[in-house]
Amino acid sequence: MKVNIPEVSKPRVVIVGCGFGGIELAKKLEGHDVQVVLIDKNNFHTFQPLLYQVSTAGLEADSIAYPIRKIFKKHRNFHFRLGEVKRIAPEQKFVETSIGIINYDYLVIATGTTTNFFGIEGLEQLSMPMKTVVEALNLRSLILQNMEKALLTSDLHEQEALMTFAIVGGGPTGVELTGALCELKKHVLPNDYPELDLRRMRVILVESGDDVLQNMAKENRDKSKEYLKELGAEIWLNTRVIKYDGTNIETFSGKGLKSANLIWTAGVKGVIIDGLGAESIQRSRFVCDEFNRVKGYDNVFAVGDVALQTHEEQYKNGHPQVAPVAMQHGQLLAKNILNLIAQKPLEQFKYWDKGSMATVGRNRAVVEVGKLRFGGFFGWVTWMGLHLLMLVGFRNKVVVFINWIWNYINYDRNIRLIIRPYNRKES
Amino acid sequence: MKVNIPEVSKPRVVIVGCGFGGIELAKKLEGHDVQVVLIDKNNFHTFQPLLYQVSTAGLEADSIAYPIRKIFKKHRNFHFRLGEVKRIAPEQKFVETSIGIINYDYLVIATGTTTNFFGIEGLEQLSMPMKTVVEALNLRSLILQNMEKALLTSDLHEQEALMTFAIVGGGPTGVELTGALCELKKHVLPNDYPELDLRRMRVILVESGDDVLQNMAKENRDKSKEYLKELGAEIWLNTRVIKYDGTNIETFSGKGLKSANLIWTAGVKGVIIDGLGAESIQRSRFVCDEFNRVKGYDNVFAVGDVALQTHEEQYKNGHPQVAPVAMQHGQLLAKNILNLIAQKPLEQFKYWDKGSMATVGRNRAVVEVGKLRFGGFFGWVTWMGLHLLMLVGFRNKVVVFINWIWNYINYDRNIRLIIRPYNRKES
Repeated sequence: MKVNIPEVSKPRVVIVGCGFGGIELAKKLEGHDVQVVLIDKNNFHTFQPLLYQVSTAGLEADSIAYPIRKIFKKHRNFHFRLGEVKRIAPEQKFVETSIGIINYDYLVIATGTTTNFFGIEGLEQLSMPMKTVVEALNLRSLILQNMEKALLTSDLHEQEALMTFAIVGGGPTGVELTGALCELKKHVLPNDYPELDLRRMRVILVESGDDVLQNMAKENRDKSKEYLKELGAEIWLNTRVIKYDGTNIETFSGKGLKSANLIWTAGVKGVIIDGLGAESIQRSRFVCDEFNRVKGYDNVFAVGDVALQTHEEQYKNGHPQVAPVAMQHGQLLAKNILNLIAQKPLEQFKYWDKGSMATVGRNRAVVEVGKLRFGGFFGWVTWMGLHLLMLVGFRNKVVVFINWIWNYINYDRNIRLIIRPYNRKES
Repeated sequence: MKVNIPEVSKPRVVIVGCGFGGIELAKKLEGHDVQVVLIDKNNFHTFQPLLYQVSTAGLEADSIAYPIRKIFKKHRNFHFRLGEVKRIAPEQKFVETSIGIINYDYLVIATGTTTNFFGIEGLEQLSMPMKTVVEALNLRSLILQNMEKALLTSDLHEQEALMTFAIVGGGPTGVELTGALCELKKHVLPNDYPELDLRRMRVILVESGDDVLQNMAKENRDKSKEYLKELGAEIWLNTRVIKYDGTNIETFSGKGLKSANLIWTAGVKGVIIDGLGAESIQRSRFVCDEFNRVKGYDNVFAVGDVALQTHEEQYKNGHPQVAPVAMQHGQLLAKNILNLIAQKPLEQFKYWDKGSMATVGRNRAVVEVGKLRFGGFFGWVTWMGLHLLMLVGFRNKVVVFINWIWNYINYDRNIRLIIRPYNRKES
């Protein structure tokens, strides 16, 4: 059955996914002679860089989620549909979705990534990923539930496992989450749990490689480790997790750890939709040419994390899977789709790397822009300012800003609510 | 197994439930020579009067939920435990809970009420109650999901059922929810769903009695109906729902209605804990004397909605089940427990009715205080001011206030997010 969408005499661009890439693309197509159909399984855009603050009770979900219909409320020829795309039929030019069939003239895959557990035993069932709002809320519930449980036991080993937080993956997400948990330990939990000896709470960042933040300069990597240690985190490098049973973490080197809280931020993979030829997929990403066209197709494109472009010498293994790439993809592809329709030549993608940054805690962040590197309070303010700028919607910017000011002044995280208790899918 | 709580040589007061009554009581016991143990199945206090704004995308859950541990962070001899009480053993003076056994010297039942479906066919499975944060969030999801579904169907009857909202129960909650849904229809949904003909969306308040807001004066009842009609609501009085199958609402008078959204606010019943004698329970409430002592027991008390006191001539069928009663119960019982311990005479409860109010929409509320009755903009501002005052925590007051100002200026409801889709438990 066809999904109920007005049929008009304009070319239809179907965009799958409402992340940074999909949204930029749809925005830039506004006012042009195309019909845009956006489909996502959520009715909101998620600002993923701040998910970790939802997990650690600093922000509520509504501050980093923004209703898609609100973003596009003034757009004409725009249609959002809530659903999930199951399969692409490139010959017949339609996608099969959970709500029916949608025809396209141009299809853009902007599905992003999902957590990659690499098939490691126990992880998918028992560790906590943090890629979606629901996962972030589940993680928040689990952290608070385990603190409550720690109060109830008089078995010291059990209590230690409940109060040990192992964050696996030394990328920005892992580093930021580690910092935020240390701050909870330092400023918030002592008020909430005077009965617990919080010196025994451990926050451990576990990384399989030999350093954290591997896309940054050594200077900043060192600085971020120093910040983490100041906040009381342990850092385990060259430590690969090979098994987890809900309490015991086994590592390749044999070093073990008891933790009821394994947070997995150590890998992602592209969200692949079935239906395209095998040659168009590599390492869970859609192989694209310099115009974001998926290999083997004229009218199927991919943008953002799920797109693999290798035409730039500097990024011959593909671009980093970060928001700025997705946004730049979306912006250029809007132009190129219009060029295609107008039969004009296409413009080649060139990534403009504006730099990268990570925050560890109050007054502690590392930033690098080109050859410029800085940190400390100034880095932290820069990090906050840029994240506020990138947040979608003026209201969300205001709400997040107020929460940050509040938390900064009061050393607090207000939203320590277990709205829906998390029950692990025990295997 | 005993729950891990320090044993001290002070009398232990165990309070079950963290509503208005439980919190007031615990607060007033601070600084006195008792140990207070508070147990609740949530780790937060819910400000129920504003739940309807969570359902209608005006407020996020964190604005009306407040962490219990934060309320009591400066209290000594205070212990919160997250769990559910299953049974009281009055002879042995302990309660059996989901986390183990807790002894008490004094037990206070402050469990409040839950939705009463009166055994009406289909209601429990298929209608939406709105007594908890999770239920309010589920309702929000369902409303938005059904609007999304309405877009997808070309069957006009199905579409109408999806866009018809039947609110059953003409009390303050029903009236306030009806008003809020009308405002969504008027100001927000037209932007979100330009493809839908929203004139066909219906908001119907269904009441089995012959008027809404039956605890208020006729003048105010008439005014609130006028407000509701101005906003576009239909009001069906003398209409009793007898069956619901998820689409068809059957009523006693034979008048039928197709609606995929039946919101049930038409009845509550006390949350009874097992273990006390049959003579201590009447109409799902614990029968109490004028000191809130449950009939037949010296050291078991009940406060708030679950307590049934009939000693006041004006309230010989029991007090109204509203927050002010619970708060006054809690305040007085704190004194009386201390009096008991000090072997002083007890003070009799006397309800001080400060009045009642209900809001229908922007600039539209009805208020009565003693013989004074007013409404309109002034009533609405009064309603807002008093609710802000009653909200727990300065941060929540600020967040709610900002949201209200924002929504007022922008005619908006920002939080139209389906964070977790709601799946009905189809029978």
